[in-house]
Amino acid sequence: MISVGIIGGTGYTGKKLIQYCNSHPFVENYKIYSGKSAGENLYDYFPALVGLVNDTKINSVNDLSYEHDLYFIALPHGESLNYIPALISNGKYVVDLGGDYRLDVEALYEKWYKYSHSSSYLLKTKTYGLADYPSTNYDDLKLVANPGCYPTAVLLSLLPLVENLSEKILSVSCVAYSGTSGAGKKAKTELMLSEMDGNVKAYKVDGHQHEPEILQQLVKKGFDSSFSFTTHLLPVATGIYLTASVHLNESVNQEEINEIYYNVYKNSPFIRLRNTPPELKWVVDTNFCDINVTVKDKVIIITSAIDNLIKGASGQAVQNMNKLFGWDETFGILNKEIKDAAVY
Amino acid sequence: MISVGIIGGTGYTGKKLIQYCNSHPFVENYKIYSGKSAGENLYDYFPALVGLVNDTKINSVNDLSYEHDLYFIALPHGESLNYIPALISNGKYVVDLGGDYRLDVEALYEKWYKYSHSSSYLLKTKTYGLADYPSTNYDDLKLVANPGCYPTAVLLSLLPLVENLSEKILSVSCVAYSGTSGAGKKAKTELMLSEMDGNVKAYKVDGHQHEPEILQQLVKKGFDSSFSFTTHLLPVATGIYLTASVHLNESVNQEEINEIYYNVYKNSPFIRLRNTPPELKWVVDTNFCDINVTVKDKVIIITSAIDNLIKGASGQAVQNMNKLFGWDETFGILNKEIKDAAVY
Amino acid sequence: MISVGIIGGTGYTGKKLIQYCNSHPFVENYKIYSGKSAGENLYDYFPALVGLVNDTKINSVNDLSYEHDLYFIALPHGESLNYIPALISNGKYVVDLGGDYRLDVEALYEKWYKYSHSSSYLLKTKTYGLADYPSTNYDDLKLVANPGCYPTAVLLSLLPLVENLSEKILSVSCVAYSGTSGAGKKAKTELMLSEMDGNVKAYKVDGHQHEPEILQQLVKKGFDSSFSFTTHLLPVATGIYLTASVHLNESVNQEEINEIYYNVYKNSPFIRLRNTPPELKWVVDTNFCDINVTVKDKVIIITSAIDNLIKGASGQAVQNMNKLFGWDETFGILNKEIKDAAVY
Amino acid sequence: MISVGIIGGTGYTGKKLIQYCNSHPFVENYKIYSGKSAGENLYDYFPALVGLVNDTKINSVNDLSYEHDLYFIALPHGESLNYIPALISNGKYVVDLGGDYRLDVEALYEKWYKYSHSSSYLLKTKTYGLADYPSTNYDDLKLVANPGCYPTAVLLSLLPLVENLSEKILSVSCVAYSGTSGAGKKAKTELMLSEMDGNVKAYKVDGHQHEPEILQQLVKKGFDSSFSFTTHLLPVATGIYLTASVHLNESVNQEEINEIYYNVYKNSPFIRLRNTPPELKWVVDTNFCDINVTVKDKVIIITSAIDNLIKGASGQAVQNMNKLFGWDETFGILNKEIKDAAVY
Repeated sequence: MISVGIIGGTGYTGKKLIQYCNSHPFVENYKIYSGKSAGENLYDYFPALVGLVNDTKINSVNDLSYEHDLYFIALPHGESLNYIPALISNGKYVVDLGGDYRLDVEALYEKWYKYSHSSSYLLKTKTYGLADYPSTNYDDLKLVANPGCYPTAVLLSLLPLVENLSEKILSVSCVAYSGTSGAGKKAKTELMLSEMDGNVKAYKVDGHQHEPEILQQLVKKGFDSSFSFTTHLLPVATGIYLTASVHLNESVNQEEINEIYYNVYKNSPFIRLRNTPPELKWVVDTNFCDINVTVKDKVIIITSAIDNLIKGASGQAVQNMNKLFGWDETFGILNKEIKDAAVY
Repeated sequence: MISVGIIGGTGYTGKKLIQYCNSHPFVENYKIYSGKSAGENLYDYFPALVGLVNDTKINSVNDLSYEHDLYFIALPHGESLNYIPALISNGKYVVDLGGDYRLDVEALYEKWYKYSHSSSYLLKTKTYGLADYPSTNYDDLKLVANPGCYPTAVLLSLLPLVENLSEKILSVSCVAYSGTSGAGKKAKTELMLSEMDGNVKAYKVDGHQHEPEILQQLVKKGFDSSFSFTTHLLPVATGIYLTASVHLNESVNQEEINEIYYNVYKNSPFIRLRNTPPELKWVVDTNFCDINVTVKDKVIIITSAIDNLIKGASGQAVQNMNKLFGWDETFGILNKEIKDAAVY
Repeated sequence: MISVGIIGGTGYTGKKLIQYCNSHPFVENYKIYSGKSAGENLYDYFPALVGLVNDTKINSVNDLSYEHDLYFIALPHGESLNYIPALISNGKYVVDLGGDYRLDVEALYEKWYKYSHSSSYLLKTKTYGLADYPSTNYDDLKLVANPGCYPTAVLLSLLPLVENLSEKILSVSCVAYSGTSGAGKKAKTELMLSEMDGNVKAYKVDGHQHEPEILQQLVKKGFDSSFSFTTHLLPVATGIYLTASVHLNESVNQEEINEIYYNVYKNSPFIRLRNTPPELKWVVDTNFCDINVTVKDKVIIITSAIDNLIKGASGQAVQNMNKLFGWDETFGILNKEIKDAAVY
Repeated sequence: MISVGIIGGTGYTGKKLIQYCNSHPFVENYKIYSGKSAGENLYDYFPALVGLVNDTKINSVNDLSYEHDLYFIALPHGESLNYIPALISNGKYVVDLGGDYRLDVEALYEKWYKYSHSSSYLLKTKTYGLADYPSTNYDDLKLVANPGCYPTAVLLSLLPLVENLSEKILSVSCVAYSGTSGAGKKAKTELMLSEMDGNVKAYKVDGHQHEPEILQQLVKKGFDSSFSFTTHLLPVATGIYLTASVHLNESVNQEEINEIYYNVYKNSPFIRLRNTPPELKWVVDTNFCDINVTVKDKVIIITSAIDNLIKGASGQAVQNMNKLFGWDETFGILNKEIKDAAVY
């Protein structure tokens, strides 16, 4: 049993983290920390949680101590830097849901996040915690950079192909659509229902900060072909749908590709390989990533779907916690596991 | 630990029942029965459930035996009649999610459901299982008529007032809006997204079959004022939102009304009394009924919200099962209860 | 042919006014005026209008002169007061889409709009411009207070009944649902798609500023029964759906009620009396008000639907302009009229 | 002034055709023809049209004569074949909104539409009526195959590039999302709001019948690179959003690409070239195609949006009619044109 600190508990991902910690069998207790919202009650932010969680006090980040075993950080980009170095140097486990430690190369932060990194020495010791990918290593680890929502969908969909077929790939075009909750809770006219209802739009077509994160991981596995990544907003609150069009320089067949994916994911409880393209609603409110791979001669179309706030953030973060402590990765996430583990 | 039979497992409420039974701590096993879908796999109906439930075999209702302790019936109106008498005479517990046993008066079935009731002797021994209402009695009981979705919202909102203030009531106007899932899964042009997206409409304004069900229960508590009930479709899949406008013949004050509701529901874990009108999303995917009562001199406006498939059907049905067996009514419904009960 | 000034052109109603003026056969030219947005181009606010309107310059309200024949004012409550007295004293026609001149009684502005009225002498000479109601008088008139969106729906639905049956009415409960555009374009977290998608909520249950406006007009026609009015938000951008439950102290029959409505509206081109409850989408993007009246013994259920930005604002405003100038009230609104009028 | 016959008037595209014909300045009269719906009234299919159109009689296709100058055919694939040969041989103009004459090669109909073409001699004399593309020729023409909705978006987006840069193109990946109205009005469970609300899914990933139609037109302009086309359903009723990722074998710059598109579309009133990705709502309910082309070194991302029922069907069909008769292509479509043409 461990104690958990949740820093930044009043956003969409914070809400999910609190719910997970509240029901996780091995989380003995948790505390919520915030800057602006300190002293308020969680129920004022999330009336839906009344009756569902036990601890609703929002503590001040100024009172943050080292009393917890693990800290989830759910803060805007650039703010995790203020807390993580001290937590790590005090021997604490940290899962950072923001982007501050995802990139390996210090210089990229200036380009993509517009700040100078103040604790770049941690970039090398952290793990990029793509929890469902079998080769992700959790040994001797304290700091996990939880992947971005888009990169989670893209990497889980493409890595098996890149690892096994990179030399045959001519080009990869990723077209991803996200629900509006990916843009956070801050009020913006362009995200109001009056504007987005019945609407769709591409955004950041000239460059999204998740693109270097994706390429960093693909290149590590040998990818060096032409790549594009275009992001869009859907008129739904939650979910990411990815369509990756992979053009090859020679034919492949469906069976060999199926086998590649099966072998990579056969022990991954949250990856569901599908015979048909998934529907977004199959994964909303779950930690699953559903993937279909359709081979058409020299083109492969991969479609996949995740919940951006769960698999793309808080669910994967809890999964990363489970892996850090050597627990079953489904604990606290899938009810059935809790039930099986229980003795009545 | 009991064994459960679920008859009619391929509709929206069937899906939820299966999920509840799958994770309920005191349901040792369950079997799914269907007419048309016998022999098929549950995953073909609900791809979202892959990895979430254990038993996915759809058995034939023709093979229905008395092996289970309790049966949930989730069939269209008129079909429960084919199974319930035999189950009851064999000493089984039955929770019927359809309307076949909700009304006490045989003649009303001809008027509202257009059939002649073949087992009217059961109408008197059944309980109308409004699970959250404290005075609902489960002693010596085998057959529970699970309330309709609209009646659940209306009765939980109005009964405290009717029980305590009926002589002051001039008129009650109930205006209820439901998500489209309340109309079932059968394909109809008027329920397609192309038609309902951005749309709203009233329907059955000249008479909805839930109206006699509501009045039956109100009248039992002394109601005899003018009453109206109008139903509408919302452009959302799930949820019911009720606005009850109660006109009085004399003033009341907010405090006395608050006290009435508090006293009725102080021990009801799924009723959340609110200081402001609830939002529909606070209750979607939960078994809660959120209620706000606002007093304006001689008018009381009650707004309430439920998930039509859970509180208005399957969640309440499981709650009724819990009550039939004397278990905590939140078991299998609220995760936290499962956690508290577990010994690791 | 007249010249029109549009003050406040960058909101949702301003957009519609510009489109109407651009295509109106008797509007020779129009100018757009704004405070904050002066100097900018209309296309930056409404990219959808590119290619659809001729004049896109946003002029400063500081440069407002008396060059136009008629002025539409589409400003937030309290701001029309700054412009209207001078326009009226210079002999101009004014249609005010805000609430500043709708109420007859000066004191009510302090209660409902929280300001002291600076030109209350105009309250008596203005007309409350419920354009589709036959008895609205436009003679010798300069200032039209364009009705609020909710009052338009409520009054068009109830006035025929109140005028003819007021002594039989026990109570009237109005439950109205509006799309989010009714709340304007200003960014608010609670109006973001992430919050409102799949959501519904009642708001201002303890008092909406449209309630005194409605009662003022009902009382003029003899209404003195118990009345309630409750407003809700729908997860759609546009439209208002009203359900008025009228409880009577004696029975009426469908035919006599039909006749009342028919006689009132037989010459109203934008009122469509329906045999079934209307659907919201029938009226969205139109200037129609669709009304169904269903009699159930001693209860009458009236359902009606309008586009809140058109019938509830800009369409009705153009209709008011047509009436002020003695033109056919459909000019500039219904295409067919334009076609019929054209000589090729 | 001409007379128009509309065959298949009770579907979504039929509705729009009727509205266009009703208000078109040069359509003197129109008649609606249908098979199943003959004898019924148009208002029973489209209550929203009450008060908006003049002629609502649905005639039987069995009574189809040669009285009209032009015929719009809005029938399911395979049914146009029953009417078009006779209409053409009687010297009538025909605009076919279905797919029966879009492909040039007879054999492709068996593969993609599963029927043997009975009037293949017309395949060579028809024009593929991509109305907004400058090189589309309308001389000596009787039969126009109106392009499919997806092909309209794809071809208007890609043809300028293909015509000017085909030798530099490595691969083109088209990812298109459509509203559900593209699937027609026939009731299907998977298209109900209960299923599609908040949902997204890819479909026909292994081959959509619009793919050969697109390739046919691209190849004519010199395209011979790797191509993919993947279709998806959006949770909205109307609109198509296209993202085309073009990978090149050498760099290009934004200015040269802008110039290519400008030169192609400078005289196209319904093409709006945009500096940023368009939003779907900018084009819904209009005949516009909005296009953004963003150059990123060796990758070009093209995003475009159309209304699938207007630009992708009925609006383009009316534009094709205008072109066949040598009228301004905006007539009957853009209000402003009607106004300018009118003499009051």
